[in-house]
Amino acid sequence: MSPPSSYPPRLTRLIDALRRLPGVGPKSAQRMAFHLLERERDGARALSAALLDALDNIGRCTQCRMFCEGEGCRYCSAARTETGQLCIVEGPADLIAIEQGTPYRGRYFVLMGRLSPIDGIGPDELGLPRLSEQLDAGWVRELIIATNPTVEGEATAYYLAEMGKARGIRVSRIAHGVPMGGELEYVDAGTLAHALSGRTSL
Amino acid sequence: MSPPSSYPPRLTRLIDALRRLPGVGPKSAQRMAFHLLERERDGARALSAALLDALDNIGRCTQCRMFCEGEGCRYCSAARTETGQLCIVEGPADLIAIEQGTPYRGRYFVLMGRLSPIDGIGPDELGLPRLSEQLDAGWVRELIIATNPTVEGEATAYYLAEMGKARGIRVSRIAHGVPMGGELEYVDAGTLAHALSGRTSL
Ligand SMILES: [Zn+2]
Ligand SMILES: [Zn+2]
Repeated sequence: MSPPSSYPPRLTRLIDALRRLPGVGPKSAQRMAFHLLERERDGARALSAALLDALDNIGRCTQCRMFCEGEGCRYCSAARTETGQLCIVEGPADLIAIEQGTPYRGRYFVLMGRLSPIDGIGPDELGLPRLSEQLDAGWVRELIIATNPTVEGEATAYYLAEMGKARGIRVSRIAHGVPMGGELEYVDAGTLAHALSGRTSL
Repeated sequence: MSPPSSYPPRLTRLIDALRRLPGVGPKSAQRMAFHLLERERDGARALSAALLDALDNIGRCTQCRMFCEGEGCRYCSAARTETGQLCIVEGPADLIAIEQGTPYRGRYFVLMGRLSPIDGIGPDELGLPRLSEQLDAGWVRELIIATNPTVEGEATAYYLAEMGKARGIRVSRIAHGVPMGGELEYVDAGTLAHALSGRTSL
């Protein structure tokens, strides 16, 4: 009697690699691997190429920290700087949600997270020294804080507000419409536009 | 005022490629892309390589239709053939579930699906002509049908049972323990072993 077998090594390797995707457990990874090998070979090849291409060519803007591809960052243009507005968001999806759902066309600063001392995420991890430099440069007349209305998002907002106030910059916080405990990127465009126009001074 | 922006083209391409994974919608794909670019660059590179390697090197056994990698299929050995048992399952995960959860060490036949006329999946799509050849070869003394206890799985089992009976081969169906409407691959090993040992003749 032969011993029990598991998958061939390359299939195991593929399943393990798929498990590194967020929210993908062992069963989903297995399902994905079979699906790709059985029915989506073109899709699998396209995914492999897109991953490599993205890793090699997508960087981060040194000013706003948004993902960008080589050429000048579209979110840090002179026209946007002239608005004097700087909107701080937690992640790239939040930036896109505001850009597509509201008429806001000022500058952004993408934290790529939120303050979370328990996870070792402090001011440095969120690029706040870089933010300080921009606030010191003098062009920012209004700092709009659009972190999520969660406990950590609020704590981050408080910290950011202090940074602005210490420099005499007007600080506002998007407020109305975004449900407490909700995630900004899931809010519909109308609600988001309302929240932005109804922002309150801090 | 600049027009609203969406993601840079390479990021869009990556998000679109991730959406071809089963069960991944636009929001999950976006979340996966950000996660890979921000925190899992090594994982992304490993996934890209594992996909290519799997596509280039994982094939299907011409006898049992299981995924295999070049060398002789471990599930179609002479020792397994000598048992005279052939167990038919819907997919690769079912084969592994039986292999790891029960003492069964006979041969397998993996349908890679189930009969579903409405989806255009008939006997040819499930490789049944190949199964016929194996049944005609004379070594099969018992055909064990382990399709899932769903409507389509039962219809497939009926069809397979007729194929065996027409050749005077003993046909059995795993029965006790697998909950109706359930999926074989999610059943615990004990239940599965019980279901296999308590199989009934058809
Ligand atoms: Zn930028
Ligand atoms: Zn085989």
